[in-house]
Amino acid sequence: MAELSERSGVPIPTIRYYLREGLLPQGRFTSPNQASYDEAHVHRLGLIRAMVEIGEMPIATVGKLFRHLENPSPGGGNDDESRTLGLVQYALVRQKSSSAGEDPADGSDVVSTLLERLSWNVREQHPARSVLAAAVGNLRRLGQDDILALLDRYAAAAHELAEAEVALTLARTGIDQRAEAVVLVGVLGDAMLGALRRLAQEDVVIREIGVPTDSTASATSDRPA
Amino acid sequence: MAELSERSGVPIPTIRYYLREGLLPQGRFTSPNQASYDEAHVHRLGLIRAMVEIGEMPIATVGKLFRHLENPSPGGGNDDESRTLGLVQYALVRQKSSSAGEDPADGSDVVSTLLERLSWNVREQHPARSVLAAAVGNLRRLGQDDILALLDRYAAAAHELAEAEVALTLARTGIDQRAEAVVLVGVLGDAMLGALRRLAQEDVVIREIGVPTDSTASATSDRPA
Repeated sequence: MAELSERSGVPIPTIRYYLREGLLPQGRFTSPNQASYDEAHVHRLGLIRAMVEIGEMPIATVGKLFRHLENPSPGGGNDDESRTLGLVQYALVRQKSSSAGEDPADGSDVVSTLLERLSWNVREQHPARSVLAAAVGNLRRLGQDDILALLDRYAAAAHELAEAEVALTLARTGIDQRAEAVVLVGVLGDAMLGALRRLAQEDVVIREIGVPTDSTASATSDRPA
Repeated sequence: MAELSERSGVPIPTIRYYLREGLLPQGRFTSPNQASYDEAHVHRLGLIRAMVEIGEMPIATVGKLFRHLENPSPGGGNDDESRTLGLVQYALVRQKSSSAGEDPADGSDVVSTLLERLSWNVREQHPARSVLAAAVGNLRRLGQDDILALLDRYAAAAHELAEAEVALTLARTGIDQRAEAVVLVGVLGDAMLGALRRLAQEDVVIREIGVPTDSTASATSDRPA
């Protein structure tokens, strides 16, 4: 256990907690007080860390997902796989916008119209619908028509990325590897894309209106802005 | 105050809290116990709500931003404007990945190389650098080379969106309107893009491996997948 903690960088009490909650499989007991853990445990701890720390997923949700992956429905095949990947994906949608969703002025109509116009196959129960509707509702309430007008560009960029993301997922072998891809592309993809958008915005702002000259500023490139 | 609460949907104790913290300007006192609030207050409350609830920004950060917007540096002009928009943007980067950033195996080298290769003008102190580095570091530690290979596609999509987002921001009149655009494009843009990526992923998965047949599933489109 001490070695597992050292190799994974996860403190021992946290590892014990994950074991208790069923997020991490038990090690192989070599004596009543000694268990041995392998590479799979180190890898699983890294995955849990990405889900919990970067993705801010609740422990209970992570546990439910792993249990589903370890006990797939009888029958299996493509149908079960599609259901499993859907379950994993839905668990990644953070429901923080629920209060905004109750507002009658929310954006569900805009979302339905958009998906229909783009001919996207999306199930009615996809939780990302209400996240999008809440964001649209907020922008509408605040009178931000110029930002709402970007929705089609966001959708086009999202679909282009989704094609590469799904291709990568389906190129992997085995449901575990595929589910891991869905989790990491979801969680770390959001983080990377958000960070890259902000970095790109600075690049565009500096080109348009110049580098601010405050004492702490220094551009990474010495080309004129 | 009761009317302001009703029109904005924000409870009175929360409005009092925002007033105390300086997030919301005082109303015009019509008597010692009565103040009147106008459209600008309703609008400001909507903006605060988007920043705090959707963007999960700390109250102190929001207060600091509004104070800066209300007291711009002497001199003003493009230089101050660029600094202000930078300040607003940096405040939007959530620093939840700080622990991952300490890891020697993190991805700062990948980030520097990427920004140099793309010739993006990005200041060294931009906090999104470490968010991106932490995500890259996580993927590298987990051996996810296929996901890391998407970085260039994410960067291209991010830059294309950033051009539209900055154009929209600079098309607005006045630093307040522009700062508001930076906040909402940052906060609600993340939410919209994350939701759209997930909806698009479902569309692509359904086209590739079919709609799962579980009882709660129903595709929005009746075209064959």
